[in-house]
Amino acid sequence: MIDEKILAILRNDTDHVSGEELCKIAGVSRAAIWKHIEKLREEGYDIEASPHLGYRLLNIPDRLIPAEIKWKLRTRILGKEILSYKKVDSTNAIAYAFAEKGLKEGSVILAEEQEKGKGRHGRTWLSPSESGIYLSVILRPQITPNEISKITLLAAVAAARAIRETADLQAMIKWPNHILVNHKKVCGILTEMKAEQDRVDFIVIGIGINVNTQMKQLPKGASSLREELPDSRTDEQVSRVDLTRKLIEKLEEDYFLLKKDGFQPIMDEWKRLSDMIGSRVKVVLQNRTFEGLVHDIDPDGALVVRRDAGTLEKVSSGDIAMVR
Amino acid sequence: MIDEKILAILRNDTDHVSGEELCKIAGVSRAAIWKHIEKLREEGYDIEASPHLGYRLLNIPDRLIPAEIKWKLRTRILGKEILSYKKVDSTNAIAYAFAEKGLKEGSVILAEEQEKGKGRHGRTWLSPSESGIYLSVILRPQITPNEISKITLLAAVAAARAIRETADLQAMIKWPNHILVNHKKVCGILTEMKAEQDRVDFIVIGIGINVNTQMKQLPKGASSLREELPDSRTDEQVSRVDLTRKLIEKLEEDYFLLKKDGFQPIMDEWKRLSDMIGSRVKVVLQNRTFEGLVHDIDPDGALVVRRDAGTLEKVSSGDIAMVR
Repeated sequence: MIDEKILAILRNDTDHVSGEELCKIAGVSRAAIWKHIEKLREEGYDIEASPHLGYRLLNIPDRLIPAEIKWKLRTRILGKEILSYKKVDSTNAIAYAFAEKGLKEGSVILAEEQEKGKGRHGRTWLSPSESGIYLSVILRPQITPNEISKITLLAAVAAARAIRETADLQAMIKWPNHILVNHKKVCGILTEMKAEQDRVDFIVIGIGINVNTQMKQLPKGASSLREELPDSRTDEQVSRVDLTRKLIEKLEEDYFLLKKDGFQPIMDEWKRLSDMIGSRVKVVLQNRTFEGLVHDIDPDGALVVRRDAGTLEKVSSGDIAMVR
Repeated sequence: MIDEKILAILRNDTDHVSGEELCKIAGVSRAAIWKHIEKLREEGYDIEASPHLGYRLLNIPDRLIPAEIKWKLRTRILGKEILSYKKVDSTNAIAYAFAEKGLKEGSVILAEEQEKGKGRHGRTWLSPSESGIYLSVILRPQITPNEISKITLLAAVAAARAIRETADLQAMIKWPNHILVNHKKVCGILTEMKAEQDRVDFIVIGIGINVNTQMKQLPKGASSLREELPDSRTDEQVSRVDLTRKLIEKLEEDYFLLKKDGFQPIMDEWKRLSDMIGSRVKVVLQNRTFEGLVHDIDPDGALVVRRDAGTLEKVSSGDIAMVR
């Protein structure tokens, strides 16, 4: 609490703030102020201390610290509760376990590193330390289990929009659960749920984004936002804090939109951001593969593919490869 | 293990078995045999001991002891693992937690009493001690989340068949998750799952049956098998062990049938056992109610109702009341 008070004061002021003033506002002694400043420095805050002028905040760490994410976060329910970890097996596993114990809708789990980051169907999502965003959010929508695809599509829309606005990159959605930049995978989404036959108990949306991850840390076909920055911007880092905040905001925006206006606006946005309709794809199902043109995405989130023989086929589970 | 060996010998023989013989086959001392016999008696086995003749099994307790259920259980995967509890919050909660930890398909959780027996949508299923069957089974079918209804319907078919064959009562299915005898609720089914968008991780089927439960222990509209026995059979108790075994066998039979021949045979059997098609029902949805005639059940397990205005309405979530 005192840390956050001190930070708030320092953030407010571009000039120095005297120790005396900090004492007064935070209501603690000079020695206590010094201890808290030291602690903040250990967390990565760059705080200048000059004997006569006092303290000045020079730089904020680009780490997934709840206080940083919450700073200026414009949401009503998403991210009101943020639990942040240095290293976890999987943020989805943690969010799922907490959701079972009743953790409330909108709660966010963050980690700097995942040792067993989860992808679809038991695959892994490589999650190296302090260069990506590994985020899971708990939702409790009043929907039936077969509507879960809507939530995955919604998350893809939110992630693509957040990446576009924060990193100024042409993020595109690839059905069902990836975001590509320059045809390379930079983000994956895994939705999991607990449900009864006709009622979802809760949903956990897991989103992994390769932000400043180096190419050598990533699997084939994948990249990171930083690696895909244009030549003119190769010195930049992408702010993970800004992107996380934007992602949480976009998720809430689209979630509220879904509740208010139904799925159509999300679907329209998905189609715009996926640019897949009309593309040639190879569909890989469990026991067969075929090629065709993407005809549409149906209201249940299934991909409708027009096979070369002319027939339409609905693909609700499986993988697709773009054929160029 | 030694208990089971002793039981197997005693079961095999309608006459007395000498202590000496038991020692030889079980491979332990006379004193050890005596201890095990005492333990079995505490569990409810009625074992006669006569000084010269030896031991004789007079009666088996009607309790949900794994060894009793497994005795002559004709299944390949269901019930190969049975965990039995005296008192639990909810067998579904235990099965779900174990399934998350990887407990294998077909495992069965049993309890003599549930303190928080679960019904649909957070309702409770009253589960008084030692008079009912409270059973949960873990399945890991390769299906998509919207196929979960098939599993609920399958469980209803299996439960109705097991009750008919064991108790010789006209058990009827009431959509979506109850079994009625003489229009009174004697059994409820709750299916829960963990799933990704397009793949079920596992399903827990919970089945509660009021077997010998007394009327005064049951809520309004409910009854038990024993209470519904015809006047000529009022002295009977229904064997919980036999019914549990039969239930597990029917579940496996119908599950294998689903895997082999698809959903149609289950659906046909469901229609036969539900006798609902053509019946007049009142449909209670979250924000409205209407009446109509049951027209069909669709392949996703939804009830199709012909409203009085003539239009067909699909009901996939909600409650119905029979209108007589």
